[in-house]
Amino acid sequence: MKIFVINPNTSGSMTAHLQRELDKVKGPATELTVVNPSEGPPAIESALDEAMAIPHTIALVEQAARERYDAVVIACFADPGLDAAREVVSIPVVGVEESALHVAAMLGHRFTVLTARAQRVPAQVEHVHRLALANRLASVRPLDMGVLEMDAEPARAKARILEVGRLAVEQDGAEVLVLGCAGLAGYGAELTDSLGVTVVDPSPVALKMAELLVELRLTHSKRGLHALPARYCHPIS
Amino acid sequence: MKIFVINPNTSGSMTAHLQRELDKVKGPATELTVVNPSEGPPAIESALDEAMAIPHTIALVEQAARERYDAVVIACFADPGLDAAREVVSIPVVGVEESALHVAAMLGHRFTVLTARAQRVPAQVEHVHRLALANRLASVRPLDMGVLEMDAEPARAKARILEVGRLAVEQDGAEVLVLGCAGLAGYGAELTDSLGVTVVDPSPVALKMAELLVELRLTHSKRGLHALPARYCHPIS
Amino acid sequence: MKIFVINPNTSGSMTAHLQRELDKVKGPATELTVVNPSEGPPAIESALDEAMAIPHTIALVEQAARERYDAVVIACFADPGLDAAREVVSIPVVGVEESALHVAAMLGHRFTVLTARAQRVPAQVEHVHRLALANRLASVRPLDMGVLEMDAEPARAKARILEVGRLAVEQDGAEVLVLGCAGLAGYGAELTDSLGVTVVDPSPVALKMAELLVELRLTHSKRGLHALPARYCHPIS
Amino acid sequence: MKIFVINPNTSGSMTAHLQRELDKVKGPATELTVVNPSEGPPAIESALDEAMAIPHTIALVEQAARERYDAVVIACFADPGLDAAREVVSIPVVGVEESALHVAAMLGHRFTVLTARAQRVPAQVEHVHRLALANRLASVRPLDMGVLEMDAEPARAKARILEVGRLAVEQDGAEVLVLGCAGLAGYGAELTDSLGVTVVDPSPVALKMAELLVELRLTHSKRGLHALPARYCHPIS
Amino acid sequence: MKIFVINPNTSGSMTAHLQRELDKVKGPATELTVVNPSEGPPAIESALDEAMAIPHTIALVEQAARERYDAVVIACFADPGLDAAREVVSIPVVGVEESALHVAAMLGHRFTVLTARAQRVPAQVEHVHRLALANRLASVRPLDMGVLEMDAEPARAKARILEVGRLAVEQDGAEVLVLGCAGLAGYGAELTDSLGVTVVDPSPVALKMAELLVELRLTHSKRGLHALPARYCHPIS
Amino acid sequence: MKIFVINPNTSGSMTAHLQRELDKVKGPATELTVVNPSEGPPAIESALDEAMAIPHTIALVEQAARERYDAVVIACFADPGLDAAREVVSIPVVGVEESALHVAAMLGHRFTVLTARAQRVPAQVEHVHRLALANRLASVRPLDMGVLEMDAEPARAKARILEVGRLAVEQDGAEVLVLGCAGLAGYGAELTDSLGVTVVDPSPVALKMAELLVELRLTHSKRGLHALPARYCHPIS
Repeated sequence: MKIFVINPNTSGSMTAHLQRELDKVKGPATELTVVNPSEGPPAIESALDEAMAIPHTIALVEQAARERYDAVVIACFADPGLDAAREVVSIPVVGVEESALHVAAMLGHRFTVLTARAQRVPAQVEHVHRLALANRLASVRPLDMGVLEMDAEPARAKARILEVGRLAVEQDGAEVLVLGCAGLAGYGAELTDSLGVTVVDPSPVALKMAELLVELRLTHSKRGLHALPARYCHPIS
Repeated sequence: MKIFVINPNTSGSMTAHLQRELDKVKGPATELTVVNPSEGPPAIESALDEAMAIPHTIALVEQAARERYDAVVIACFADPGLDAAREVVSIPVVGVEESALHVAAMLGHRFTVLTARAQRVPAQVEHVHRLALANRLASVRPLDMGVLEMDAEPARAKARILEVGRLAVEQDGAEVLVLGCAGLAGYGAELTDSLGVTVVDPSPVALKMAELLVELRLTHSKRGLHALPARYCHPIS
Repeated sequence: MKIFVINPNTSGSMTAHLQRELDKVKGPATELTVVNPSEGPPAIESALDEAMAIPHTIALVEQAARERYDAVVIACFADPGLDAAREVVSIPVVGVEESALHVAAMLGHRFTVLTARAQRVPAQVEHVHRLALANRLASVRPLDMGVLEMDAEPARAKARILEVGRLAVEQDGAEVLVLGCAGLAGYGAELTDSLGVTVVDPSPVALKMAELLVELRLTHSKRGLHALPARYCHPIS
Repeated sequence: MKIFVINPNTSGSMTAHLQRELDKVKGPATELTVVNPSEGPPAIESALDEAMAIPHTIALVEQAARERYDAVVIACFADPGLDAAREVVSIPVVGVEESALHVAAMLGHRFTVLTARAQRVPAQVEHVHRLALANRLASVRPLDMGVLEMDAEPARAKARILEVGRLAVEQDGAEVLVLGCAGLAGYGAELTDSLGVTVVDPSPVALKMAELLVELRLTHSKRGLHALPARYCHPIS
Repeated sequence: MKIFVINPNTSGSMTAHLQRELDKVKGPATELTVVNPSEGPPAIESALDEAMAIPHTIALVEQAARERYDAVVIACFADPGLDAAREVVSIPVVGVEESALHVAAMLGHRFTVLTARAQRVPAQVEHVHRLALANRLASVRPLDMGVLEMDAEPARAKARILEVGRLAVEQDGAEVLVLGCAGLAGYGAELTDSLGVTVVDPSPVALKMAELLVELRLTHSKRGLHALPARYCHPIS
Repeated sequence: MKIFVINPNTSGSMTAHLQRELDKVKGPATELTVVNPSEGPPAIESALDEAMAIPHTIALVEQAARERYDAVVIACFADPGLDAAREVVSIPVVGVEESALHVAAMLGHRFTVLTARAQRVPAQVEHVHRLALANRLASVRPLDMGVLEMDAEPARAKARILEVGRLAVEQDGAEVLVLGCAGLAGYGAELTDSLGVTVVDPSPVALKMAELLVELRLTHSKRGLHALPARYCHPIS
């Protein structure tokens, strides 16, 4: 099976990091391609960044469908362009945030999302509401680091996650922590051991969810929310 | 006061229609500019259309702020780009959907949104949830006409609104109807008389809401959800 | 246009204060009358006070309709008698709480209501639920001053608002503050500057919302929740 | 124990009907007084009626407390004045709607409220939301008869309840029916037999709930929502 | 009337304690039997304990129905087996948690449940959601004592309740406290006096609720949620 | 990896059916064991059936953990004993209902659950609420066939699913259908083709979700809801 992973920002080092981590967990029969658009914001840390990244992300999704990939993963914790992408193709499109939060909801009573910056907390809370999972949200807590900083300084990022994660467990009743940035791929297991609660690393979850859907021949419904836009003739299969 | 109204699609006839209708209700001291982007989708009828219209819409919002407009109205019932626009400027940005639904919620117990096509119903339901107004939603009902069709054939559009609106009142308990398309500007009063319930015409509501905010010197909070993105120096006032 | 503003308590000094502040923001074509009933509680700080003020308030609403006013504003943050008033008249009746909270919901992700006394906090939380805006509520915080005290000692009231408002922003994630007392009219702009978040002053918002409705010829639906009571022949227009 | 039942409307025949039915179910040690105010609306079928009945109802509640009654029942399905009454006294005040709906919620998955007139349906839905029981509501259905008509024509009222109740069971999934009018006291058992679902008759439930509270020496909390209003020295009894 | 109270754990001393306390509040015409199963967990402090206690509890419910009891009370704050029990019998089956929380919801704006151990807090929060009463929940707070410890050391249990209850009132806005363990029967009144808020003692509430239902000839609906399982011929009346 | 699948009822033919269908989708490295308890109900169609099946199911979960299985699947759409099982073991325990509904929520806006009998509809609705997915529920519709009937007469079962599924799509707005019975394993793809919407077959989804969790070394949090019960020394592996 061929899976196409899109890092929607233009940071090549984050793309390389994702490729490295996802190669470790992909199924034996999975061919993995990890790309990023050549244009757009270098990191996605605002609604503006999302808006600017989405057209480029959708173009890559269309390319994947034309090139007969079996599934696409959008690897940014905001899931930019997910609904639009699902409108234009009929292969599964998996968002790292959506799949990580649904898995987190199955692994404990309440989860905390660790997000990069404080000003993204309200947007992140809104995302959880849109996914209809608000009853399972313990809190959203900021790490107070930028996305690119976390990529460049992994040791500091892990230390912050430990510190903030501990507060989430002790003060907010979090039973599960979700790393709210696709670029943190690979830190889950180590943090689970240190914190004594389940830590969900979203990019690997999304990749395995894509494999699950392809193996079961499941994809999003093309009736209703993700129906082909009226001006298109047919979805790119 | 100078108000800048953006029709986010590229249909010049819809822009002209909006200009004509909004001129009738604007305050005596309001200078009104109604524009549309030169690029992008001709109508906004899908998540894909929204995604493609947003960057052009945001560019126009930035232009309005630089040109010292006092407020901006985004005149498409999906409010495309509203959060991103509010991040980059500090003048009020009013969405026709958001303002129409809040006003509708004050005018009766439950409202029905009349939307163009059936496949937009789930997206429209989601919008009402995002605005936290779900407890006031009677239903979303499709008119089964395209946005451009409605603009081109106003008589047929009105007939459909009467027909579908009546079903909403009788079967769904709607006390208020909201015309879910910015291009239907100007039909409210006539429909209110025919249907015996309050009909909310979103574009005029949004224009007057913009005037209200400017007169009271109110704008969106720049702390939290609409904080200036980290990579920007300062908002375009 | 003629707008009739009712201060539902019997405090003449609060009525004078309202008149003064609303005169500053009314539209050029608006004739403004601000009154209070001659009987009833001197301030509205309990469900009991509301109950006792409502019959007098409704009588004034009926008077306004008979005297051909174009709209009525009930200027007490509990919106006493709003539903009953809307049953008996068909001109718009605007509540300061309802209109301020809907506007606040459009200006940021979460708002905090600053209320007079601690024992009113649960009632205030209930009001927000009734308006279906609970998902936008950051908190209700008491100022621990009586309504009449705030009117008599504006400097102390402002100092308390600054102090409590700062806690709401820092601890509750409030992006918008709503002054939960009609008598605080006129403090909004000054507080917005000091606190760096949007502060909503409800009485001016309600007055401008009444003007908006009249200009757009909108009023509450007379079908359903606000239908004319069965024993009445016809609404006082 | 002495229980004081208030029919908040001025219909003496409804008061007599209540006295007759409640005498059948009261505990052996209960002394029952059933009264109505001498002034106010003859039936309570609108927010206006509620507003006009409340001051008289509260005066009767205060009288009951002064005369050392052990508990008060407000016997109108809208529970007019319940919060205000609880502020001024510390003996239990039981609302027929509140107690009937909580009991109904324990007797099946979803309940339907049968209300007098169609225009009260939205208000009734709101009441269920205020009691936080919305997840247990199957529907509110109107009987399309006035309150006084139902009192005057019991056979027709029963026939309508059978007819509408059957629709609620078959179309709305109601497992429990609640008679949404205090004046329907005494019809529950007969209707339960005919319809094969549990029918809750609110006035008897409220009387027995008052007895339960008195026997367990429970009353509403005087901290928070029902704290004594600031201008009162102390609650009556 | 004959009421059968089941302590679902095998602790005879807790059963004796319940018998003693319930005898104090039962109605003069009530014959009370309090039993516990001979097999199963000695205390119910986990989902596992619940699962193991339920078959024995249901067997006792069936026995009560065969022996012509008028109602059954399941006296463990988790209400183990409540739905299954209601399926197999048609006499009322009352859960102490369900009845205590509904009564608590009528006695103040928000209640706090005091539960035995910290690890039961999430399960307890879930129970309140299942009962659809989440909007009335101030908090769940643990006493950090085991169920059997509380039974063995009543003075220490009371001291903990005072301490934790005070925090609930002061920090969480609780107006009502619910003792989240059937074995705490009899402490309510004393704690109400000390804490100045209403304290609900669930076992007595459940017993009186059972009497209320029997006196009013009400029972759970046998249509829908509690319909007789398909393989049974008829409910044990 | 070794996965242990428990059919919690005693129907051997259903166990064989599950084994056959799951063998088709299991990963190449997965060793699959499918068992059922020797005692308990032959099908699970009521809360009573669930209660009686749970102790036997938990015993099998414990056996799987002792025998060093990597994960357990409970293959009955009610997920009987899921929370208790997670308390006693630390290997992942996957419920077919929980995993199917979370996957369904990712594949369209609203899903409909097709359940065996009408009397299970309210319980099924409650399950969706407990999983916090109520905002994604279009409807629950009964097939009006027993679980064993569906197993014995697959052609009739498929015909009913087509018929009822079509109503869900056309009348309830379902975009995704979930086969609410573990015994329907293997029908998903065929039905997806016939109905034109995504059909989720829960047992295969649960198996692949178990593989996903094992491959990512994720399991439920042992802090909070699924903490080891106090009387146990340590979880089984």
